[in-house]
Amino acid sequence: MNNLSVEHLTGIKDLTPADIELILNTAETFKQVINRPIKKVPSLRDITIANLFFENSTRTRLSFELAEKRLSADVVNFSAASSSVKKGETLIDTVNNILSMKVDLVVMRHPNPGAAKFLSERVDARVINAGDGTHEHPTQALLDAFSIREQLGTLEGKKVVIVGDILHSRVALSNIYCLQKMGAEVMVCGPTTLIPKYISALGVKVEHNLRRALEWCDVANMLRIQLERQDIKFFPSLREYSMQFGLDKQLLDSLNKRIIVMHPGPINRGVEITSDVADSDQSIILQQVENGVAVRMACIYLLASKIGR
Amino acid sequence: MNNLSVEHLTGIKDLTPADIELILNTAETFKQVINRPIKKVPSLRDITIANLFFENSTRTRLSFELAEKRLSADVVNFSAASSSVKKGETLIDTVNNILSMKVDLVVMRHPNPGAAKFLSERVDARVINAGDGTHEHPTQALLDAFSIREQLGTLEGKKVVIVGDILHSRVALSNIYCLQKMGAEVMVCGPTTLIPKYISALGVKVEHNLRRALEWCDVANMLRIQLERQDIKFFPSLREYSMQFGLDKQLLDSLNKRIIVMHPGPINRGVEITSDVADSDQSIILQQVENGVAVRMACIYLLASKIGR
Amino acid sequence: MNNLSVEHLTGIKDLTPADIELILNTAETFKQVINRPIKKVPSLRDITIANLFFENSTRTRLSFELAEKRLSADVVNFSAASSSVKKGETLIDTVNNILSMKVDLVVMRHPNPGAAKFLSERVDARVINAGDGTHEHPTQALLDAFSIREQLGTLEGKKVVIVGDILHSRVALSNIYCLQKMGAEVMVCGPTTLIPKYISALGVKVEHNLRRALEWCDVANMLRIQLERQDIKFFPSLREYSMQFGLDKQLLDSLNKRIIVMHPGPINRGVEITSDVADSDQSIILQQVENGVAVRMACIYLLASKIGR
Repeated sequence: MNNLSVEHLTGIKDLTPADIELILNTAETFKQVINRPIKKVPSLRDITIANLFFENSTRTRLSFELAEKRLSADVVNFSAASSSVKKGETLIDTVNNILSMKVDLVVMRHPNPGAAKFLSERVDARVINAGDGTHEHPTQALLDAFSIREQLGTLEGKKVVIVGDILHSRVALSNIYCLQKMGAEVMVCGPTTLIPKYISALGVKVEHNLRRALEWCDVANMLRIQLERQDIKFFPSLREYSMQFGLDKQLLDSLNKRIIVMHPGPINRGVEITSDVADSDQSIILQQVENGVAVRMACIYLLASKIGR
Repeated sequence: MNNLSVEHLTGIKDLTPADIELILNTAETFKQVINRPIKKVPSLRDITIANLFFENSTRTRLSFELAEKRLSADVVNFSAASSSVKKGETLIDTVNNILSMKVDLVVMRHPNPGAAKFLSERVDARVINAGDGTHEHPTQALLDAFSIREQLGTLEGKKVVIVGDILHSRVALSNIYCLQKMGAEVMVCGPTTLIPKYISALGVKVEHNLRRALEWCDVANMLRIQLERQDIKFFPSLREYSMQFGLDKQLLDSLNKRIIVMHPGPINRGVEITSDVADSDQSIILQQVENGVAVRMACIYLLASKIGR
Repeated sequence: MNNLSVEHLTGIKDLTPADIELILNTAETFKQVINRPIKKVPSLRDITIANLFFENSTRTRLSFELAEKRLSADVVNFSAASSSVKKGETLIDTVNNILSMKVDLVVMRHPNPGAAKFLSERVDARVINAGDGTHEHPTQALLDAFSIREQLGTLEGKKVVIVGDILHSRVALSNIYCLQKMGAEVMVCGPTTLIPKYISALGVKVEHNLRRALEWCDVANMLRIQLERQDIKFFPSLREYSMQFGLDKQLLDSLNKRIIVMHPGPINRGVEITSDVADSDQSIILQQVENGVAVRMACIYLLASKIGR
């Protein structure tokens, strides 16, 4: 198979295992490209891509922008702060206007869950969800899957624990879908207050003790605590959280095995993980960032082949 | 004739009918270009364009930026928020500095009426006015003229009503000049408080009843009510305004003929027009946006041919 | 010699006179390029450059961006306002993330003295300091040196006075190092409160009377008074400052010789210099801006030749 079963990338939930396999394999080729001295391919020279960011996100936006430029696409950026969204325009009007300027593909981050899907049903362009509220963040899950497969050869049968604020995380949900579709076992670990009740219905193990979770897993994905969100109560304080669910070198070294440590960034050093863990050779945090560009190139490339059909 | 009579595009007032004709015809060619699979032409590969936006305007800036990139120009963006204008620098100093970096063409939006003209008389680059306060917005008027001509075959003898806040609109004035030069008849319609006293001196009809205006016209251009401007008093309230000067489907269908509905965007749905009007097949709002890119390509292309003479 | 002795451009202090000579000579070639109808060279087609601006600076950012585009590099921009720096990420994490996306060269402005140096010791990319707090601003000093050499043929033995707020200026320190390395004599002139005590240890003359300074010099570099900084006390008021240290046409014409007037911009007209001085033929302010692009092209080009070694 050399074509995706979907017309848009709005969530991992819609993808088949074969879709994910195709994206990861295509990303492998692009990873070779971006490690060559000549890092560009002329594949999308005639495609115009609009990056619509209705929330700030430096690293995701930069990663997409680099992916687009290395595919030789034309890129226009749009951020909510400087937009007529502030003038009271609806999402559909904003996007329709941009599409009327003959944009072929839209990468959108939006605070509302379902925004990307809503859009994809109403516009005549390919849509990639770059995060829709607490719902999905599919390219992050794909780059995480790529990074694990790169380390362990396969996802099949591997044990991955996702640690932290599962409730407010779009990364967690997309990761659960993606890992399960690829045959991995998934556990979540965190304080009861930060784990949604529906999670066990997804076939995910739940663990509240970090040491036990780490003893079980091959890979620990340490989610970011969103310190800037005042509305989230950490159990019972950030310091307590860090003591119970933060990963330090001593705990890591006390395990009888070598696990892989991941983090979607940006890290709060000393909160989710300590600096010596972040910088250790078990951490693949910077590889995740590098792989992000390759995976996004793959997603854009595969969807672009469906433009104008 | 294949050359403009002007060195800059600061306002429609300075253009001859032949200039407007040339721009519209050139835009027709570019509209074909942007509807091809390969949407770019290498025409301006050696030209550097600076977009100087001293006021926010997502759609105008994006439209110009896409036009510039499809002509293969190099583009630098400058917005007031992040500029040394805040450091107390004068407009001329800012622009002179940018020109000293060898910029060939400046697209400028500025809150002061006459700013583009003032600039064009003092700098050694082509200048395009992308809106100067309540004065002119020539590329908007040109894309409106293009869109009407595309629908009706000609502007000659056509009847166009401009509805809404004429007093605070740069779109209105440029449209009046442009339509009259191309042989159309123009009426303005709105509350007395939002129609400037000088307007009848321009040879424009004035009407305060929307139904009568619509019965007269072939085309209704529904201007945007600037809800974000606290200093504008709507007669006597926004709700009253909308009831007297808003266009809904019932009113549109009750006319004995098919008129064309335009809006420069962004729409306040339910204020100037209702959603069913905006999305009806009499509305050409999204075509206006598409034509905006083609018309701006034409303006830039024609002025660029005058660089370095 | 056709190679720099340094791997990064973090400050003039680290450069040898031969390095400076090489940069200025290379910039001369690029100045010819940007004055051709075709202003671009394909030299850096495979290089990706990130402009990281943790402080606003329109003209420096634009100048670098144009330099990069004219070398055909791929460019991504990052400004602190829209960054995850606000999310509490460390400088090293931010930059490492950007580098993991395979960026070859970083241009950074940062409020902390030493930030560029700190970075250059920890990342695997070339670093150019575009201003680090009150410390250094090497490309400004190089473009100033280029502009003086262009006017006077050489820097050797020339007398340059730097006038104004020496204490808070990164331009002053870089200029002093650069001019001295190239054999020029340097004087600083300003109120006692704005001249740091260590300055005479650098072998710089100090003068508190502007007329005497001007009578001594061949070139006067009038620094910008940072009106937006509330924490700086001007002696004893801005008006007093301007009367004692501002340069007007009468004072300029009263000298028995023709001196060159420079300003790093943006000018506060009527404060450091009057408009008639800024616009006189003794002022080379706009040439400085033009030369800035050529000098930055040279710096980037010379450092890029060291990528991947």
